[in-house]
Amino acid sequence: MAMEIVCLDLEGVLVPEIWINVAAKTGVDQLKLTTRDISDYDQLMRHRLAVLERHGLTLADLQAVIATMAPLPGAVEFLAWLRRGFQVVILSDTFYDFARPLMVQLDQPVLFCHDLTVDQAGRVADYRLRLPDQKRAAVRAFQGLNFTVFAAGDSYNDTAMLNQADLGLLFDPPDKVVAEFPHLPVTRNYQELAERLRAASSRPLSGL
Amino acid sequence: MAMEIVCLDLEGVLVPEIWINVAAKTGVDQLKLTTRDISDYDQLMRHRLAVLERHGLTLADLQAVIATMAPLPGAVEFLAWLRRGFQVVILSDTFYDFARPLMVQLDQPVLFCHDLTVDQAGRVADYRLRLPDQKRAAVRAFQGLNFTVFAAGDSYNDTAMLNQADLGLLFDPPDKVVAEFPHLPVTRNYQELAERLRAASSRPLSGL
Repeated sequence: MAMEIVCLDLEGVLVPEIWINVAAKTGVDQLKLTTRDISDYDQLMRHRLAVLERHGLTLADLQAVIATMAPLPGAVEFLAWLRRGFQVVILSDTFYDFARPLMVQLDQPVLFCHDLTVDQAGRVADYRLRLPDQKRAAVRAFQGLNFTVFAAGDSYNDTAMLNQADLGLLFDPPDKVVAEFPHLPVTRNYQELAERLRAASSRPLSGL
Repeated sequence: MAMEIVCLDLEGVLVPEIWINVAAKTGVDQLKLTTRDISDYDQLMRHRLAVLERHGLTLADLQAVIATMAPLPGAVEFLAWLRRGFQVVILSDTFYDFARPLMVQLDQPVLFCHDLTVDQAGRVADYRLRLPDQKRAAVRAFQGLNFTVFAAGDSYNDTAMLNQADLGLLFDPPDKVVAEFPHLPVTRNYQELAERLRAASSRPLSGL
């Protein structure tokens, strides 16, 4: 009888892509790029910070947009089901200052992510990765604590975590990620993801 | 700006001592002993399993008692406050089969604990530690993931975790634990614990 943790990506799995929403609501198209488009996270974040600077967008501007967002349809119910059967930790490359209002809507799951550095004018001056390759490192740490780890994510920055996990599942991924990581099983909705996790669990769990 | 996790003991901190409730409701006084009385956990568990066997008590009997329990007064509100300001992981030497109904009442926090082995007759045949010294190991793992870790517990089996944490706080401990670990600050209620954590945090948090 194994003790099991599920590690979930946040954006694209439980909530919409935050930066895409920011791009749409601010009208700044250059903020549309995500880890789905640029696989190097630092390169992507440098791009974003430069664009924010150029357009004079502050943390408060970004938080105002994020406050209007909601979890993806079905995400709250899926996560509630998941937490009844497994220990769950969200592993995301977003920032605590961004994620907080979304975490409230998801009933406060545990989130491992990163921090922003904000200057006195309220501008996002920099970002601080808590740890490079943090998703994979977290999965390894949980395995070191004798947990079996299942993981699901949609994007490039999830693949190290998915490969490290005892079972790694893609969730609604873009075609190029599927093509580059053909060994990772693909799930397209919460029902499929829940069934995969149920089948992988050593315990009898009721369905979603 | 540090990224902070709070690790909390369960019994005696958020919920009453499970075995003491089992002893009271089954009338089996020999089940009253806890980690507060016997510091060697394996010795304590061997004693409990022998007593269960002698009295013919099954897992279902124990679960029936646990289902009547509720979190300590104020625990739900304290934990909700804590989860708004910190990532929170419960570290307990109880068992998933025992804790589940209490976790529902606490709004499904993440719990790291252990497993029971149950035989075909429904008797608790054995217990399976997920990891020896798991509380300290979890704190170290979180520190290895670049989190600052605050911890609180009431008993002998918490002291390794409290010593490992960046800040370790005793919560409503028995006098003998206070006497043996005089370097650990003592808190007596949720208000005091919340104030200590607020003061230790690198971030501005509203009070409990």
